[in-house]
Amino acid sequence: MIRKELVNPKSIAVIGASNEITKPGGKVLRNILDGKFAGDLYAVNPKEEIVQGIKCYKSPDNLPLNVDLAIISIPSKFVPQTVKILAENCSTRAFIVLSAGFSETGDRGAALEKELLEIVDSYDATLIGPNCMGILTTSYQGTFAGPIPSLKTDGVDFASGSGATAAFIMEAGIDMGLTFSSMFSVGNSAQTGVEDILAFWDETYDPATCSPVKLLYMEKIDKPQMFLKHASSLIKKGCRLAAIKAGASDAGNRAASSHTGAMASSDAAVDALFSKAGVVRCYGREDLMLSAALFSHRELKGNSIAIVTHAGGPGVMLADTLSKAGFIIPELKGPAAEKLLSQLYPGSSISNPIDFLATGTAEHLEIIIDTIDNDFPEIDGIVVIFGTPGLMDVTPVYKVLDEKMKNCSKPIYPVLPSVVTAKDAVQYFKSLGRSNFSDEVLLGQTMGNIVKRKEPADTDPELPEINVAAIRKIVDESSDGYLSSTNALALIDAAGIPHAKEITVNSIDELKSASGIGYPLALKVSGVLHKSDSNGVSLNISDENQLLSEFNRLMDIQGANGVLVQEMLSGTELFAGVSRHDGYGHLMMFGMGGIFIEVFKDVVSALAPLGHEEAGFLLKKLRSYPLFRGVRGQKGLDEEKFLDIIIRISALLKAAPEIEEMDLNPVLGTYHSMACVDWRISLKR
Amino acid sequence: MIRKELVNPKSIAVIGASNEITKPGGKVLRNILDGKFAGDLYAVNPKEEIVQGIKCYKSPDNLPLNVDLAIISIPSKFVPQTVKILAENCSTRAFIVLSAGFSETGDRGAALEKELLEIVDSYDATLIGPNCMGILTTSYQGTFAGPIPSLKTDGVDFASGSGATAAFIMEAGIDMGLTFSSMFSVGNSAQTGVEDILAFWDETYDPATCSPVKLLYMEKIDKPQMFLKHASSLIKKGCRLAAIKAGASDAGNRAASSHTGAMASSDAAVDALFSKAGVVRCYGREDLMLSAALFSHRELKGNSIAIVTHAGGPGVMLADTLSKAGFIIPELKGPAAEKLLSQLYPGSSISNPIDFLATGTAEHLEIIIDTIDNDFPEIDGIVVIFGTPGLMDVTPVYKVLDEKMKNCSKPIYPVLPSVVTAKDAVQYFKSLGRSNFSDEVLLGQTMGNIVKRKEPADTDPELPEINVAAIRKIVDESSDGYLSSTNALALIDAAGIPHAKEITVNSIDELKSASGIGYPLALKVSGVLHKSDSNGVSLNISDENQLLSEFNRLMDIQGANGVLVQEMLSGTELFAGVSRHDGYGHLMMFGMGGIFIEVFKDVVSALAPLGHEEAGFLLKKLRSYPLFRGVRGQKGLDEEKFLDIIIRISALLKAAPEIEEMDLNPVLGTYHSMACVDWRISLKR
Repeated sequence: MIRKELVNPKSIAVIGASNEITKPGGKVLRNILDGKFAGDLYAVNPKEEIVQGIKCYKSPDNLPLNVDLAIISIPSKFVPQTVKILAENCSTRAFIVLSAGFSETGDRGAALEKELLEIVDSYDATLIGPNCMGILTTSYQGTFAGPIPSLKTDGVDFASGSGATAAFIMEAGIDMGLTFSSMFSVGNSAQTGVEDILAFWDETYDPATCSPVKLLYMEKIDKPQMFLKHASSLIKKGCRLAAIKAGASDAGNRAASSHTGAMASSDAAVDALFSKAGVVRCYGREDLMLSAALFSHRELKGNSIAIVTHAGGPGVMLADTLSKAGFIIPELKGPAAEKLLSQLYPGSSISNPIDFLATGTAEHLEIIIDTIDNDFPEIDGIVVIFGTPGLMDVTPVYKVLDEKMKNCSKPIYPVLPSVVTAKDAVQYFKSLGRSNFSDEVLLGQTMGNIVKRKEPADTDPELPEINVAAIRKIVDESSDGYLSSTNALALIDAAGIPHAKEITVNSIDELKSASGIGYPLALKVSGVLHKSDSNGVSLNISDENQLLSEFNRLMDIQGANGVLVQEMLSGTELFAGVSRHDGYGHLMMFGMGGIFIEVFKDVVSALAPLGHEEAGFLLKKLRSYPLFRGVRGQKGLDEEKFLDIIIRISALLKAAPEIEEMDLNPVLGTYHSMACVDWRISLKR
Repeated sequence: MIRKELVNPKSIAVIGASNEITKPGGKVLRNILDGKFAGDLYAVNPKEEIVQGIKCYKSPDNLPLNVDLAIISIPSKFVPQTVKILAENCSTRAFIVLSAGFSETGDRGAALEKELLEIVDSYDATLIGPNCMGILTTSYQGTFAGPIPSLKTDGVDFASGSGATAAFIMEAGIDMGLTFSSMFSVGNSAQTGVEDILAFWDETYDPATCSPVKLLYMEKIDKPQMFLKHASSLIKKGCRLAAIKAGASDAGNRAASSHTGAMASSDAAVDALFSKAGVVRCYGREDLMLSAALFSHRELKGNSIAIVTHAGGPGVMLADTLSKAGFIIPELKGPAAEKLLSQLYPGSSISNPIDFLATGTAEHLEIIIDTIDNDFPEIDGIVVIFGTPGLMDVTPVYKVLDEKMKNCSKPIYPVLPSVVTAKDAVQYFKSLGRSNFSDEVLLGQTMGNIVKRKEPADTDPELPEINVAAIRKIVDESSDGYLSSTNALALIDAAGIPHAKEITVNSIDELKSASGIGYPLALKVSGVLHKSDSNGVSLNISDENQLLSEFNRLMDIQGANGVLVQEMLSGTELFAGVSRHDGYGHLMMFGMGGIFIEVFKDVVSALAPLGHEEAGFLLKKLRSYPLFRGVRGQKGLDEEKFLDIIIRISALLKAAPEIEEMDLNPVLGTYHSMACVDWRISLKR
């Protein structure tokens, strides 16, 4: 739990404070002083009287009675005892431990970390770290690492599972003019992880005083359900979240494991988690900062964009990028467009991109933005590209741009490319609290990444009623591992999932009743491992004679203990599968089967539970989705019946969380039917 | 033709020189002076005696006898006459016309541009512009626009079809430390377009004195064959080319058309052109500059990378990015790896990424790079990520990095993320002539874009012998438009392309001979437009009775003038198509047919001629390629027979360039056969 003393302390003691600012204990004090912390500030160092101009105590024992927050930078072995003294003598309830030498170094360090945590927990105190870079809030600059960004309540909030990475991320953000409201480097996360920061943001969120933009850097998600809960909650309150979860590849996982001890997790599960929560997934520092800068603008409510530029080329490249990302750059037409054209220099173009020429003025820009705002309600957002080859001072243009950004009802994204030539003007623009997207193509790509984000999914969607009692009975009576075909079928039946009729028979007598399924039939030998290799499958059996002879043939195969007689269905192959991931719960996957999954890897996935709406949304994201609607004169597939199977699986998983893996493959579909033909379910408690 | 006077003039006259550096004529003179041009410099302005400290002539008539290059910035209407005077009186043979007011403004301007061009051409002189930003060479800074990059013979060469865009591109390059050798802004390209600059680079290329890195920004490619010839030639000489061709989308094309008068061109043709030439295609300024910076390093000869970092996070993100882009980040193992580990601080990791911790030193970096260079021949390139949270000066590390980059046999790409915190150290590194990739993920993405580039394709590949005489006869005797089915078939036959046997019959007598094709047969009515709607197709005819009755039924359809009797083939649908694009020649496309092309858009394309090697390379790029090898227990398709069809089409196009469109769809394939079943060919002279 994060206490207010951590974020907004009345007093801070730096334990291990130093005059040398090349040491963490020196630099963190320097930063707190530079940040003009308004409360009481104490230094502790046995060898000093005064440190960086402030009184220094020889030992924590000598400190005043009340210290809200201690920032500790001393050898690790002294940390637990120091924390105990502070908690006991000074009622300190917030600790930031910068010192390394804990669990990241091996077993002895891990024991020390455990000892530290037990002390902190026993006082119901907050611990950040150990082995962390510190934190930044609008109240104080409690980190030893640079850069220190401009800290404002309307800046962005940022939590990172890696210290140096957080510093490098902020470098990129500062460069584009981004301001921050807070930064948390959680280090070893002994007590407080990135998920806990997320929970804190959620529980204390007040739209009047808090930043709506939240950013995360993670190499592991220890508590996916906590992440889901608070990320969705924040987004539902109006926040916008973007996050990096690094370690998606084998090499990346190997690196993350050695860096932050992250366990390899399925990247599909991470994707599904982000998607369920409504979090924009980023993959790099530039990407994350661009997303943050975009989020810091007015909300973009649609995908129709006007590009306003005084230089053709960047407008062309941006139009290409946005088109590729699914945006529309509609031509502007009609009397308002013609009036606009008449107000610009001859040779200007208003077809969108609106090119008002290298000689275009601040006044022109004002007219253009006002016209779009007032006369083109179909436009959702505006990108303004304005640099200079150096003949004029563009500051007046940037002044107008800033004004318009305040007043225009649509978001305006500024691209100011002349970062060298118009350095001062760009700096002036940033000093107004604005970000600059210096590259229009990177901006367009980020816009594309954000626009495809969905609102948080319903975490408790309506699911069909299924026979839970029957399901529980089968599951409770089964042991871990793969269910027998009969039990698996019974589960599917109880969930109301349509399937091919089938019966397993051992004798010719039983075979007769099987023929009631109706021809054509398929036979599969039971008790034999490699059915195909041993010629143990017989398809398209169309009459009783054939049935009898094939039954006899199959029963003669060595090891045969019966024959599965199944309704012979035809149709297009689809599939649905489930795998359970620690902490994440069940990941459901579905799509067209056969080569579509094997060759084209065309599959969608989501975390359970999956309601009708989300399943339908996902289905449409399949590249093969047109096959559901029918292509090349062929009838489509029964989409509703397939979605019904998906949400019935979801209901089944809710009734039987013990299911570890499940495969319905293939499901055979036609334009009026869906039925699964083969299934496999395993349990693990 | 570009004359040496343009690039390396002994004397320059600025016509329209001014004291006001907010005017192009003032700024260009300022830039030439700032660049310390070593030759004679003259100013011309009727109103001044001295301009920016140099003697000013009232009129070009008064200039000395020899002026190599004139840079002209006066009202457009005076330009032609001025050029004539200079050419006549001063033997000027190179002109850069900065002035606007020519073809970009309409018909009158276009007439003026034509007049200007005729004068220039009559003196066999070189013209850059009009309406351009000027040029930069290592000899002089002949542009009125900023920024002026550092100009060195080992910098990159850059030509741009858009002036302001060139300036903005250079902004991005300068920011990452890139130096330039030349910059050409071609403006309206009245005489000299981007392709001509490319030709000039090719014709004058000397590896001892010229930069091997060439960059282009284009919105149109007026002379694709010229582009292909010189781009491939430069690359074969060891150069590396990257280019933006903006205007790929509808909106982008609209913008390019209003910006530089570009005609919409097929983006697939542009892709095919770049691919044939071996040029890396970029889509944005950042992208182009990153490619240039990568190109300026030692050649990367494979896809196996070592990541060396002192901060975990960026290493993880880069490992993810490179893995996704097809690179390998192999684990480093064995005695050399163990020895390396023992030389680093405890807690370091050498598994790749090699993480030598926040406290890692310059000496460590040296040991790591030497070990990789000496003991791990399987590694092709190294990325070094080294920033700082600010506690130490990283300059010593960057010194070592620069040294190692000189000596290491593998390319080393530096990622120095602390652009704010370690500003001075990064600046120092750049001052050594080095570029900085400040974002590892953008670097990884660019590496991925470059590594998939292919060497220039063979522009005269060996093609199968086909019956050219027969082809020429048919083509010469046919008029423009679609060929009759019979003529199209004859062309296909002459090209040796396998096809279903077929014959068109009008009577029952003829029908009898048709049955010699062999059952099963397919019948299609002739003379009726919508065959399927009118039930005019009959498939799987298996005997003479059925043949007769179906023939009669089809002949009874209104408008029927015959029946096509065709061998009934079965197999997987493939397709091959051709479309001709002005200037580009024939664009060939092929892949799996049916839903693979219609739903998955899974198609490869290339400019003709297409030899066996290139066709085979492309085929493997199809997402559906595994179907050729066989999947899910099914036999594959006869790849060689399909490739043979492709190269026969290529030979056919060479024999009959009049072919405007051609479609073989479907081609039916099995594991041992390929034959086309339907075809359509049109001619246009």
